[in-house]
Amino acid sequence: MRIVLDAMGGDNAPDAVVKGSLLALDQIENLDITLVGDQEKINPLLEGDQRIDVIHTTTTISGDEEPVRAVRKKKDASLVLMAKEVKEKRADACISAGNTGALMSAGLFQVGRIKGIERPALSPTLPTVDQKGFVLLDVGANVEAKPKHLMQYGIMGSIYSEKVRGIKNPKVGLLNVGTESGKGTDLTKQAFDLMSEAPINFVGNVEARDLLQGTCDVVVTDGFSGNIALKTVEGTAMTMFSMIKRVFMSSLKSKLAAAVLKKDLKGLKNQLDYAEYGGAALFGLQAPVIKAHGSSNARAIYSAIKQTVNMVDQDVTQTILTTISNDTQQED
Amino acid sequence: MRIVLDAMGGDNAPDAVVKGSLLALDQIENLDITLVGDQEKINPLLEGDQRIDVIHTTTTISGDEEPVRAVRKKKDASLVLMAKEVKEKRADACISAGNTGALMSAGLFQVGRIKGIERPALSPTLPTVDQKGFVLLDVGANVEAKPKHLMQYGIMGSIYSEKVRGIKNPKVGLLNVGTESGKGTDLTKQAFDLMSEAPINFVGNVEARDLLQGTCDVVVTDGFSGNIALKTVEGTAMTMFSMIKRVFMSSLKSKLAAAVLKKDLKGLKNQLDYAEYGGAALFGLQAPVIKAHGSSNARAIYSAIKQTVNMVDQDVTQTILTTISNDTQQED
Repeated sequence: MRIVLDAMGGDNAPDAVVKGSLLALDQIENLDITLVGDQEKINPLLEGDQRIDVIHTTTTISGDEEPVRAVRKKKDASLVLMAKEVKEKRADACISAGNTGALMSAGLFQVGRIKGIERPALSPTLPTVDQKGFVLLDVGANVEAKPKHLMQYGIMGSIYSEKVRGIKNPKVGLLNVGTESGKGTDLTKQAFDLMSEAPINFVGNVEARDLLQGTCDVVVTDGFSGNIALKTVEGTAMTMFSMIKRVFMSSLKSKLAAAVLKKDLKGLKNQLDYAEYGGAALFGLQAPVIKAHGSSNARAIYSAIKQTVNMVDQDVTQTILTTISNDTQQED
Repeated sequence: MRIVLDAMGGDNAPDAVVKGSLLALDQIENLDITLVGDQEKINPLLEGDQRIDVIHTTTTISGDEEPVRAVRKKKDASLVLMAKEVKEKRADACISAGNTGALMSAGLFQVGRIKGIERPALSPTLPTVDQKGFVLLDVGANVEAKPKHLMQYGIMGSIYSEKVRGIKNPKVGLLNVGTESGKGTDLTKQAFDLMSEAPINFVGNVEARDLLQGTCDVVVTDGFSGNIALKTVEGTAMTMFSMIKRVFMSSLKSKLAAAVLKKDLKGLKNQLDYAEYGGAALFGLQAPVIKAHGSSNARAIYSAIKQTVNMVDQDVTQTILTTISNDTQQED
């Protein structure tokens, strides 16, 4: 199988992308890698290693560019050429740590949707207390959603959790303002009914308070609320760590005590860092499209490659297609 | 002024409510208090103190009852009789630590909306790194909202922050998936335009990641998203504290180190506990209606009383009425 990566995307590009790719080639069998980006910058990092194909371009899309316009105008940007490799079947899947909106746009318009899937969903895996993690979707591929979209998110998240994360009969919950059925907006009420009938292990509504407790393996919501939930987790964790740091630095006595705990607390930080759980998958496209975290180091890129290889190996795309078309036929 | 409290609401009722009320009478001048609840339980706690009027009832609404139905059926429940005291002008404001939905329902149907306010909003004050805090509204009085409602939430939050929290020219932000204008759903796009024209210091969109950073004094959103944000903050903080505790208890060495830091970390926990910032006000009603935290102790009840007295003193209700009617006239 061949995975193509946007060598120029992310805070540590191309260094982290190249090194992560080399690490993956060392560890994973039957893997070929293509990198898209500036060969003047990539080649020195390869140190003569011949295993990686490079597609050269000097055009890039930065993190703060307006995504749709950038993808439309910059036809030779590394991220766009990457998606084109998948579109034209020269690669099985693609990964970028760059502009999320641009990746979603290139994914949607170049790679294309799976037949029957109305909206793709951006789906990171978030940490839980029991370290099992859960898939949250959508976190912003589409800010508005219809009940049917949420039901399809549930199916896609469930397939991914089972096939790639190895969770049997994954529990799928609907993010809501209360656990009782009949709670929430028209959207959540209608989605609740559809999800109850869908080929998933639907466990009902889940409150935001319980997200990190590991109550569910998959949590479904519209892209607006999912984005709020994801960024609130990030913001709260970040704020708490900075407050804890302030406590630790407040006196010599506390500094000494903190030194003893430092390693364990660092472990805690990693445990809460959702980059550790791999990249965010863009579910519902005709091939795996993965958004690695913007701050990815070589290790995180390697994790994202492993995750992507797994998605290709387990044929997640085909399973989604089959499940959705069966579900649609039953409806008819 | 007279404040009426639901003596039977909350995890520590009636003990915390009675003791918090006595504390308030000791500290606050020109204050009268009425308690509604079971006098068999309340009287022993008063220890002969004659300053508090008691309205006796043995009917209560529990935390897990369906709110609207409970309020409609249990006409003599402590919470319902409490709201009636305000409705019939025997009290200036009311406070309950009980069933939030029931309080909103009793507030809406008994106390009634301010003329011109289309939807009331439930508005807690959340902690920030700089300890200034911010008002988040709505967190669930109405799960769905129209652009005009969000604009009115902004006006009400701004008046409260200025009058009661003493913040000059409070910064009002709109919770959104990105900071650029034009981001988000149809709701947020239209609300953005309306808020830009409103008599408030509108600073634009704010991301969930920045909530606790103190970027804004007031953050406006629909009740569904607000509920998700609030409960995600709570859940993440709770999860992190339990994980930290586990690290601390993991070895004798870490237990000893943790003992040194315990007091400071306890301070951090209080800092993040939004019960410390008083109760959640239900804005847009004809008198202050305050939801104290369910787990309120006597101190938290006292804080909620102080906050409520402040709202009455500063005539928040009249200011909202005047501002809204001026704003509506300008529209015409």
